[in-house]
Amino acid sequence: MSDATKHVVIVGGGFAGLNAAKKLGGRAGVRVTLVDRQNYHLFQPLLYQVAMAGLSPADIATPIRSVLARCQNVSVLQGSVERVDLQARTVSADFGRLEYDYLLLCCGSIPSYFGHREWEEHAPSLKTIPQATEIRRRLLSAFEEAERTEDPDLRRQLLTFVVIGGGPTGVELAGAIGEMSRFTLARDFRNIDTRLTQVILIESGPRILSMFSEQQAARAARDLEKLGVQVRPNTPATSIDEQEVHADHERIRSSTVLWAAGVRGVEVDGLLGQHGQHGPHGQDDRESDRGDRVMTDRGGRVIVNEDLSIPGHPNVFVAGDQACFTHQTGAPLPGTAPVAMQQGRFVAETIRRDLAGKPREAFRFVDKGQMATIGRSRAIVEIGRLRFSGWFAWVAWLVVHIYFLVGFKNRLLVVLHWAWSYVTFRRGARLIVEREWRFGNEKAK
Amino acid sequence: MSDATKHVVIVGGGFAGLNAAKKLGGRAGVRVTLVDRQNYHLFQPLLYQVAMAGLSPADIATPIRSVLARCQNVSVLQGSVERVDLQARTVSADFGRLEYDYLLLCCGSIPSYFGHREWEEHAPSLKTIPQATEIRRRLLSAFEEAERTEDPDLRRQLLTFVVIGGGPTGVELAGAIGEMSRFTLARDFRNIDTRLTQVILIESGPRILSMFSEQQAARAARDLEKLGVQVRPNTPATSIDEQEVHADHERIRSSTVLWAAGVRGVEVDGLLGQHGQHGPHGQDDRESDRGDRVMTDRGGRVIVNEDLSIPGHPNVFVAGDQACFTHQTGAPLPGTAPVAMQQGRFVAETIRRDLAGKPREAFRFVDKGQMATIGRSRAIVEIGRLRFSGWFAWVAWLVVHIYFLVGFKNRLLVVLHWAWSYVTFRRGARLIVEREWRFGNEKAK
Repeated sequence: MSDATKHVVIVGGGFAGLNAAKKLGGRAGVRVTLVDRQNYHLFQPLLYQVAMAGLSPADIATPIRSVLARCQNVSVLQGSVERVDLQARTVSADFGRLEYDYLLLCCGSIPSYFGHREWEEHAPSLKTIPQATEIRRRLLSAFEEAERTEDPDLRRQLLTFVVIGGGPTGVELAGAIGEMSRFTLARDFRNIDTRLTQVILIESGPRILSMFSEQQAARAARDLEKLGVQVRPNTPATSIDEQEVHADHERIRSSTVLWAAGVRGVEVDGLLGQHGQHGPHGQDDRESDRGDRVMTDRGGRVIVNEDLSIPGHPNVFVAGDQACFTHQTGAPLPGTAPVAMQQGRFVAETIRRDLAGKPREAFRFVDKGQMATIGRSRAIVEIGRLRFSGWFAWVAWLVVHIYFLVGFKNRLLVVLHWAWSYVTFRRGARLIVEREWRFGNEKAK
Repeated sequence: MSDATKHVVIVGGGFAGLNAAKKLGGRAGVRVTLVDRQNYHLFQPLLYQVAMAGLSPADIATPIRSVLARCQNVSVLQGSVERVDLQARTVSADFGRLEYDYLLLCCGSIPSYFGHREWEEHAPSLKTIPQATEIRRRLLSAFEEAERTEDPDLRRQLLTFVVIGGGPTGVELAGAIGEMSRFTLARDFRNIDTRLTQVILIESGPRILSMFSEQQAARAARDLEKLGVQVRPNTPATSIDEQEVHADHERIRSSTVLWAAGVRGVEVDGLLGQHGQHGPHGQDDRESDRGDRVMTDRGGRVIVNEDLSIPGHPNVFVAGDQACFTHQTGAPLPGTAPVAMQQGRFVAETIRRDLAGKPREAFRFVDKGQMATIGRSRAIVEIGRLRFSGWFAWVAWLVVHIYFLVGFKNRLLVVLHWAWSYVTFRRGARLIVEREWRFGNEKAK
C-alpha cells in the first residue's frame, strides 16, 4: 500500500462500526482496523428473545470476521481499547498500540443504575449475550424452584416477575414473560399453575413507551394486560434486593427482577482529557473555553459536531449510542439501531469525501419510524403519521427485524424459530445452563 | 392415585433415564419422578459440534419437561441427588427427600484424568454444555490471539492444538479442528495463515478407534491426516500445563489441549455403603461376602445383575454409563447412547413385568453397529460384518444422528445447519462468549 493510504481505526463492531467498515471495505486509499472486545456483531433488537429462550445466541450474532472477510483492506482484531491519545493519534488496546489517521469511536452504551450499582446483582440488564443467558437462567430457574418448593409464600415470590423500565425493551421482556407463563409453560409443570404468574412492569414516568403516541402506548398497555402484565406508571424503584423491590411505598416480593430503565455511553479514557469535562452539568472549567472542548451529556454520551466529529479533532468521530447528536431537532437522537447504522455509513462517506478533497456535509437522520412488539403476535408501529397495531403491525415488525438481521442463515433460522413458536406455542431454547464448566462440584475423587 | 401406585424415582435425564420415563409414562399403577441437575436432556453424540462452533447448545438439548409434558404420571424436578438410602428406600436431593418403590440410577459418567485432576484446567473435557462452550471459547480465542501477536513462537504455540485420546470423541474433535482451520477460517484472517495450524491427536494405546476394525481405523487415520491432523499412537501424556504437553519424551508447545481420554461412572453416596467397595481391584472386605454386595469396576461403574438391578436390591437399577454390565460377552458394554437407551427401556419393561406378576428377564443388548465421523463428509461405519467408509458412511452417520435426536425442530435445525455448512464451508456458531455477565469490567463509574 502506498504511504498515502490512510489508516482508519474503528473501535466497536456494533451497528455503527460494522456499517462504517463495510462501506470503507474495498475502497482505495484507506485501510481499516476494526477493534472489538467480542468476536461477533450482536443484533441487539432481538436480544430479548435470547433472554426469553426463543432464540439461541448464535442466531442473532455473527462473527465480525465473516461479515468483513471479503473486504481485504479491513483487519479485525479482538481486544479491549484502554485509552485514546488525541495528540499522538494513537489508540492503546490490551494487545498493543494502533496509530490512526482517522478514528471512529462507537463503543455503545452500558446499563445505568443511576448510582445504584449494587442493584445490578439483583436486577440484571439486557445488553450482552452473557446478560441475556443469565436472565434466561434466572427466569427458568424461578419456575423450576417454584415447582419444587412446598412453601406457598416462597412460591408466590418465585412466580412474581418485576420488569423495571417501560421503554421498548421493558415492554418486550414483560410481554414475553406473560406469554411464556400463560402458554409455553402451562402444561409442563405438575405442582404449579404457571398461568398464575404475576408480571409487574414499573415505570417511573407518567406512561410506558414515551417515544410513541399516547394512543399507541395505551394500546400496548392493554395488550400487555391481556397477557397478565400489570403496568404501573409513576412508580420509581427506590430499592432492590434479593427478595423484593420497593417502588412507590409498595414492597413487591419477587425473586426475579429485570432492569430495562436506563443506559449511559461507554467512557473511553483520554477522550475528555485527564479530568473529564461535562456539558451543561460539568463544573470543570480549568481549560480555556476555546469551543473545542470534548464534552459529554448527562448520559455520558459525547457531544459531537454536525459531522459527528468531536470539537477540535476533525479526524475523530463518535457515532451510535456513544454519541449525543443534537443538531437536527435540538433533542439528542435516540440510541437506536437505525441511528447507529446511518451514522456509521455517514462517517465512512465523510472520510471518502475528505480523501477526494470534497467538503464535508452535516449528518441528517432519516427517521423511518419506530416499532415495538408486545408478546405473541402483537406490536405497535409508527411511521411518521401512519400508526397501526395488532397482528399486522407484528408482521411488519417481524419483516423489518429479519430484513436487518446480518447473514442469510441467521434470517432463515430466526424465521424458522418464529414459525415454530407461532404454531406450537413453544420456545426452542429453554436451557438453564450453569456458568461453571469444571466438574469440581461432582463427587469424583 | 390408589395406594397400590408404585413410585419410581429416576435419577438422571440422559438416554437411559429419559427412555425409561417415556416408557413408564401414561402407564397405570406407577407414578414417576425424574430428577436431573439440568433442566434439559442433552444429545451427547453431537456435543462436539457445539464445541466446534457448528451448532448451538439449544439445537441438541431439549427441556426434559417438554419431552415428558404429555405423561401426566411423570413429574420432573430439577435438583441434585446427594445420597441414596437403600434400607429406608429414600433419595436425598438438595430440595428434599423422595421415597421410592423402585429406583433407577442413571447419572452417567464424568471425565477421568487418571489421578491428575489438575490437568482439567489446561485440558477441558467434553461432557456438558458449559464444557463445550468453554472449548469453543478457547479454540476460537487461540486464532484471535495468534492474529494479534507479533511473536512467531507464541503464534506457533497458539496454532498448535493437541487432542488427547483416540476414541470417537477425540477423532471427531481433531477432525473438526483440522477442517475448520483449513476451510472455514482460511479467508477470515489477515496476519495468519490458518491452514498452517497443527492438530496433534495423541493416543496411549497402539491405535486410534480401538473398538473398530484395524482396517477402518487405518482409513480414519488417513482421512484425519488429509485434514492435517498428525495421529500419534503409543503416546501417553505424562504432564500438561498451560503451555505444553509432555508425551512420550516429547514436549509439544500448545495453548489449547483437549481431553477425550477417559471417563468414570458418577458416584452416588450410599450406594456402596459407607466405605465403598470395589470389585476385582478393591481391598475392602469388612463386610461378609454375602454375594449381595454392591461393587464397582475400575472405572467406578456399578456392577449390575443380569436384569440391571444391584445385588440384594431387586428394586434398585443402574443403567447407562453408570452401570457395568458384563453378562452378555464377559466384557463390559461400552458407555454409548444405544446401550443407555436400550437399558432405560428394559428397566421400565422390568418394572411393568413386576407389577403384572411376570418373571423378570435378562437384559440383552442388540448391537446395531457403530460409527464415527472424521471432519467434513467422511465417516466410518461398522454394522456387524458390514463395513464402509467415506461420503456414503458420512450420510449414514448423519441420518442416524438426526433420527435419534430428540424433537422435530431440533432435527430440522440440525439438518439446516449441516446443509449450510456443507455448501458454504462456514460454521454458524463461532461466538466467543465471555463467562461473566456483569458489566463490572467496564469503565462505568
